[in-house]
Amino acid sequence: MVPVQTRPRIAALRNVATRLRIDSVRATSEAGSGHPTSCASAAEIMSALFFAEMRYDPRNPQNPDNDRFILSKGHAAPVLYAAWAEVGFLQRDELLTLRRLDSDLEGHPTPRLPFVDVATGSLGQGICAAVGIALNARRIKSDYRTYVLLGDGESAEGSVWEAAETAAHDSLDSLCGITDVNGLAQSGPSIWNHDMEAYAAKWRAFGWHALVVDGHDIAALLDAFDQARATKGQPTMILARTVKGKGLPLAEGKGGWHGKAFKKGEELDSVLQALESQFVPEDEPAQPYGEPRTRRDQSRPATQATLGTLSYKLGDSVATREAYGAALATLGDGDDRIVALDGDVKNSTFSEKFEAKHPDRFFQNFIAEQVMIGSAMGLASRGAIPFPSTFAAFLTRAYDFIRMACISNVNIKIAGSHAGVSIGEDGPSQMALEDLAMMRAQPNMTVLYPCDAVSTERLLALMAYHPGPAYMRTSRPKTPVIYGPDESFDIGGLKILRESANDVATVIGAGITLFEALKAYDQLRKRGTNIRVVDLYSLQPIDTQSLLRCARETKRLITVEDHYAAGGIGDAVATAVAGGGFTVDRLCVREIARSGTPEQLIDKYGISARHIVAAVTA
Amino acid sequence: MVPVQTRPRIAALRNVATRLRIDSVRATSEAGSGHPTSCASAAEIMSALFFAEMRYDPRNPQNPDNDRFILSKGHAAPVLYAAWAEVGFLQRDELLTLRRLDSDLEGHPTPRLPFVDVATGSLGQGICAAVGIALNARRIKSDYRTYVLLGDGESAEGSVWEAAETAAHDSLDSLCGITDVNGLAQSGPSIWNHDMEAYAAKWRAFGWHALVVDGHDIAALLDAFDQARATKGQPTMILARTVKGKGLPLAEGKGGWHGKAFKKGEELDSVLQALESQFVPEDEPAQPYGEPRTRRDQSRPATQATLGTLSYKLGDSVATREAYGAALATLGDGDDRIVALDGDVKNSTFSEKFEAKHPDRFFQNFIAEQVMIGSAMGLASRGAIPFPSTFAAFLTRAYDFIRMACISNVNIKIAGSHAGVSIGEDGPSQMALEDLAMMRAQPNMTVLYPCDAVSTERLLALMAYHPGPAYMRTSRPKTPVIYGPDESFDIGGLKILRESANDVATVIGAGITLFEALKAYDQLRKRGTNIRVVDLYSLQPIDTQSLLRCARETKRLITVEDHYAAGGIGDAVATAVAGGGFTVDRLCVREIARSGTPEQLIDKYGISARHIVAAVTA
Repeated sequence: MVPVQTRPRIAALRNVATRLRIDSVRATSEAGSGHPTSCASAAEIMSALFFAEMRYDPRNPQNPDNDRFILSKGHAAPVLYAAWAEVGFLQRDELLTLRRLDSDLEGHPTPRLPFVDVATGSLGQGICAAVGIALNARRIKSDYRTYVLLGDGESAEGSVWEAAETAAHDSLDSLCGITDVNGLAQSGPSIWNHDMEAYAAKWRAFGWHALVVDGHDIAALLDAFDQARATKGQPTMILARTVKGKGLPLAEGKGGWHGKAFKKGEELDSVLQALESQFVPEDEPAQPYGEPRTRRDQSRPATQATLGTLSYKLGDSVATREAYGAALATLGDGDDRIVALDGDVKNSTFSEKFEAKHPDRFFQNFIAEQVMIGSAMGLASRGAIPFPSTFAAFLTRAYDFIRMACISNVNIKIAGSHAGVSIGEDGPSQMALEDLAMMRAQPNMTVLYPCDAVSTERLLALMAYHPGPAYMRTSRPKTPVIYGPDESFDIGGLKILRESANDVATVIGAGITLFEALKAYDQLRKRGTNIRVVDLYSLQPIDTQSLLRCARETKRLITVEDHYAAGGIGDAVATAVAGGGFTVDRLCVREIARSGTPEQLIDKYGISARHIVAAVTA
Repeated sequence: MVPVQTRPRIAALRNVATRLRIDSVRATSEAGSGHPTSCASAAEIMSALFFAEMRYDPRNPQNPDNDRFILSKGHAAPVLYAAWAEVGFLQRDELLTLRRLDSDLEGHPTPRLPFVDVATGSLGQGICAAVGIALNARRIKSDYRTYVLLGDGESAEGSVWEAAETAAHDSLDSLCGITDVNGLAQSGPSIWNHDMEAYAAKWRAFGWHALVVDGHDIAALLDAFDQARATKGQPTMILARTVKGKGLPLAEGKGGWHGKAFKKGEELDSVLQALESQFVPEDEPAQPYGEPRTRRDQSRPATQATLGTLSYKLGDSVATREAYGAALATLGDGDDRIVALDGDVKNSTFSEKFEAKHPDRFFQNFIAEQVMIGSAMGLASRGAIPFPSTFAAFLTRAYDFIRMACISNVNIKIAGSHAGVSIGEDGPSQMALEDLAMMRAQPNMTVLYPCDAVSTERLLALMAYHPGPAYMRTSRPKTPVIYGPDESFDIGGLKILRESANDVATVIGAGITLFEALKAYDQLRKRGTNIRVVDLYSLQPIDTQSLLRCARETKRLITVEDHYAAGGIGDAVATAVAGGGFTVDRLCVREIARSGTPEQLIDKYGISARHIVAAVTA
């Protein structure tokens, strides 16, 4: 433990809060939009956190041992920026560039700023990221604490309760939440308004230490933080009763002021004048409170793991989901940044293979996909390389979190198993038929779709160290190993598996449909017709040049995919070759599917070898 | 109230439970897959519900006044099917067709079956639908009660707690949940295992009446249902402590048996033999308990509302989101099936205009998008025409619910406002740039994107009565009214706004980009270059013939959209014209966006008139 300074006096902290209000009001009025009243309710909380509770290096927000702060109520961004100006990291003048195209002080916080770990502004997500950030402290053996500020409105998001149950289950006593209960949401009172006991009962029922305080009483806040720090074995939620627009005479406690800046001129001037009058005499100015709790030697640079010799033999029958688990377990041997998360399906996604070898780096999220992706986002923001996995269908549950992970551009590596109708009898609720569309829509998402165990293993290792978010789609059925031990793969590559000088078409598959394409090749070959067969294992980025060459040489491109028509392989290829004037014929699932055997369904929905042969010979 | 029969004796109900177990085991063994142990834990609950508690017409599952039952733990489908066989609605033999392609008895329930309201199998959704179904009873002034059976595993889903808070807020005392707490999830113990007080504390904290009972004690269950029915002003959750695989000697209470059928032969025979031995002597067989609680005259057929005379004038400046709210309010005058839901942004989506006229048919879901879409799904399944609305970006939060609504093929009409970078300063967290991809991926989703107030109003009326799920994308900025009062629109149509014999390209926009295209038209026209301008207000279905004609006549197609590259207007048009051998040039947002003014961002991300002119003249 590092010795700490004396805590600043209350008067100085009150004046910090007043300056945070002034800066938030000024910046939003200059921008002409924003949420000054949502900042004002949180001013004392921010002052107490940044100047009396949190221990961090104010010159280096990325010090790995700094206490972390996540603004889950992201619309209060101006008060966060004001705090970092008060700390001295930003120039006060910069605050007036709020929301401008040439400024990183965006309307809601994004990691363009070095003191922001994850983008917030989609409510109920910051606390999920905070769970991951708190878990990361254990991973790097740091004593840093994690603080997250929520709004009362966002407490209605189910993801908040997923975070609550996960943090309690993992006994995350380094996590301290503060809910700014100002009682007013955007369109009216928040769901539980100012019923502080309604909040406390919920947090207690979910296993948290919950405290109710006056959120404008700095001494009460400091006392609550002391209690939180002293609480072992469970996280703490400080429920701070506040007034929306506190200190802003026109708006204090009033509805109709959410997300409105004060008009420059008389309106703004009157608010600023009132705020100026709120300063109190102080003995000495507030300073950031103390150095990080952990002193760290310059840590050795992380090294990337490499995979050993492959154990698969050509012709082995292995599901890609199983190869995924095996590869992840092995990769984890050589790099302790790699962690895995799962949503109660580890025996289906085979992330249990990772858990078996690295139980301390495996996080069970039960059936709660939002906090799984959210905490992975938090882990990634602090240097881990998280692999959250579940059925690809249930990643739809966390699409907003995936979207925000992409805005944050973190190194999150998502795995979705049980793709498509080829899962068979379980039926449409368990079939991912839109996951490629969902993932490809995000412009910085890498999208991979291996067909066999070897390509799964190799792509997983590449994906781990490819910067930014990535997605791997795996399949339920076993498929034969078709790649040898020396085969190499690239993100943005493809494999041409069958090729001749007189191919009449190129058939492009991935995952299970690749084997349908190979079957079709054999059937056509017997009839004297040659087709080219492409394994499009990387959908985004995509190998445009090779696809264009195939288009030029074979004239026809036919895509076949275990996915709906829009947003998958067909669209990826069509977009890639459009510049050459080529179009694509698509075989894909075109209606809501139903239960049946995998073979029946692949055939019924038009993506079996029979349909490929028909398309080629049409 | 209809007079009721005497309740069957306990012994008869125990025998029903035994038969439900036998049928569930038999069917899953015949199918070779499924979840018999998840059925077995719920057998007494199902027996008590279907033969002693629920009041319904067993010959007509769609009677609007029947008590409703939703199997939120959808993987226990076989016990639901067995119950309807026991009731006499299905033939017992049919149960052995479980999971077959030629059977509607799918792996998880879907509304292909007349006794299933909404598809379940993505956990935590059934209870959200149940909230909507319970709300619907108020809408149609029926006394029916709504029962929903959850698993303990799925209680970890945040959406369950969104449903909890909504049902309590709306005082839904006609809603009764039962949680089958069998303690075991798929991959291990469920998050709170058999800690019954942990469940009860949560439900009580969320405002429910919560009871803990032995889920295999029929008398205790009947008593709990009595208490639930007597509880006014709040919903009831019956927490039933059960044993997974109860009554199945090989699997009872054991891990490792989730989702496994017993092998036909010795294994199955031993289980069936044990079950047969569990029958007890009974006085008289169980019968469904009673007729529906409400007697209804043949209700008059619903009539469709029509819109009156339009109040917009050419050149008026109106945001499509505002026109949406106004049109919905008017449409609601003529058809009381129309209801609106919102997630605390009614003053941004303008659903508040509907609330002002129809407060009894407006449901405030606070910031909880999953239960908003889930309860809309439930309302739609019972004959309402629900319009849930929020920022389009936050619909990503509910994508799994949208997916299941599409599998259910219900008449849900989703509205997403604040599309794209044109929202401006609030930044990327609030910008929907993947919503068209997400919605178009669903094959039965109608996708509409009006550019002005008149087209918004007309398309909204069409969307209300177009069968199946539909999505309307609206914009934040005001746009000029360009359509006159007599203009007609079609789902699957488009408008050609500028056309000449010597157009050098067709520029296809929608929403705010249509106005950029019109500006580009004016600029190019001054230079003597003509372009065709298309308003693609219907993306799915899409007017393939008109697009092909434009492609043939103008040679070039250029799409421009306030959306990411994948899955939006560009892909929709490219797919439509591929059959004619045509490709598309795309202007779209190609990277993660940031804060700025709408005008700056439209230009920065390449979708302004300037970029259209450059693309045309390139």
